[in-house]
Amino acid sequence: MRFARISHSEGASFVAIGGEPDSLIAAELSTSVFEDPKFTGRTWPLAAVQLLAPIRPSKVVCIGKNYADHAREMGGEPPADPVIFIKPSTSVIGPDATIEVPAGLGRVDYEGELAIVIGGLPVRRLKAEDASSAILGYTIANDVTAREQQKADGQWTRGKGHDTFCPLGPWIETNLDPAGLDLRTELDGELKQDGNTSDLLHGIGEILEWITAGMTLLPGDVVLTGTPAGVGPMTDGQTVSVSIEGIGTLTNKVAAV
Amino acid sequence: MRFARISHSEGASFVAIGGEPDSLIAAELSTSVFEDPKFTGRTWPLAAVQLLAPIRPSKVVCIGKNYADHAREMGGEPPADPVIFIKPSTSVIGPDATIEVPAGLGRVDYEGELAIVIGGLPVRRLKAEDASSAILGYTIANDVTAREQQKADGQWTRGKGHDTFCPLGPWIETNLDPAGLDLRTELDGELKQDGNTSDLLHGIGEILEWITAGMTLLPGDVVLTGTPAGVGPMTDGQTVSVSIEGIGTLTNKVAAV
Repeated sequence: MRFARISHSEGASFVAIGGEPDSLIAAELSTSVFEDPKFTGRTWPLAAVQLLAPIRPSKVVCIGKNYADHAREMGGEPPADPVIFIKPSTSVIGPDATIEVPAGLGRVDYEGELAIVIGGLPVRRLKAEDASSAILGYTIANDVTAREQQKADGQWTRGKGHDTFCPLGPWIETNLDPAGLDLRTELDGELKQDGNTSDLLHGIGEILEWITAGMTLLPGDVVLTGTPAGVGPMTDGQTVSVSIEGIGTLTNKVAAV
Repeated sequence: MRFARISHSEGASFVAIGGEPDSLIAAELSTSVFEDPKFTGRTWPLAAVQLLAPIRPSKVVCIGKNYADHAREMGGEPPADPVIFIKPSTSVIGPDATIEVPAGLGRVDYEGELAIVIGGLPVRRLKAEDASSAILGYTIANDVTAREQQKADGQWTRGKGHDTFCPLGPWIETNLDPAGLDLRTELDGELKQDGNTSDLLHGIGEILEWITAGMTLLPGDVVLTGTPAGVGPMTDGQTVSVSIEGIGTLTNKVAAV
């Protein structure tokens, strides 16, 4: 199942996406995305509506340096244990929304990532082997980063926490094995990141066990699993796309504001 | 005005606190804390109910090393610019609730702090001189910190983000000049921190301008302003109290779990 959230002429709705690849249909849910889906009967051609971020997380918890090749391009070896940080809910935007770069912010990078979406129950002290019971599905994220702020502060919160710096989407794929998925990021059509989730240093279950040892994940919270090598700057007017095998493509424009 | 949230026999309510110091009364609000208060007419003796965290923030944004004496006791000079990090909403507890310390976590410290509560409108790109328009009032926080995790990770999110690691309360004081307030932390009745908000390196307005240059603060979000010198460990069975002049005292028990 692919769950999404859309904006249409009468408001916003959670939907399931179906139909043929060239004529996708959004069918409005009467249930939450955490339940067996039931439908209102309203449908829209996907091409006629705007996708929003597919979930509204209370927080986005992120893993730093979880691919060895990215850790090395940042100038070091990957840490032995996962390192976490938080992007606030206010940083989340949806597909096709604009990544806004304030004047004077310096270099702002894309970081394409596989994102875990937590299911309908709070998750605390999860064992890695029980991870699938805690997960609703997967989507795509761009962990947009103001690189100079990240370095200046030491703490990554400010440089990664700006409004619009967490594009999510296009939808949540609930039927997906997250192992061995190609992850590619393109900037204005040029391939910049070409990784595979088989290179995650800390796997999905291990990450969720690590986080929830201390911090409860709430329904719909999102966990970003780290980015492979190839990060680099985006500038005003460029378009960034992150594609993950089995999910789809998350595309956003960049604008100086 | 002092706004609080209480648990009583029929549920939970936002209230205003009035009455005499030895016989305080909680009067249930029919309005939100962001409006001119109106009342339902229900009241309780405060001694007969339990105070909860006075607000439910979407996020708690914190300033690190904002008192020179604390920066030095941590082994360095304070940074020139504010450094921010986030404690998640899941870390918030109220007065008298238990700070839970998981086995094996190592040293866990109290850090008493003045907390800003954001008012009823989202705050973005605030100018320092307009800060009072963005602020509902002030409360007290304990920025509980697992010191070994903080040091091991470099990033402070995990060590400061545990469930129960952000006690807030006892209430929001809306009529308070935050300048020159004594701040004292006691552990089992022994004075451990004895600071004053006149020693804040970055003031309230500067902090809010710094954060909201990039990150929107939502209604009810909380900003912790940093801790003075004297931080130290708490262990199972101890009681920690943070008192700020003009607000009151926030007391919590510590328990190993």
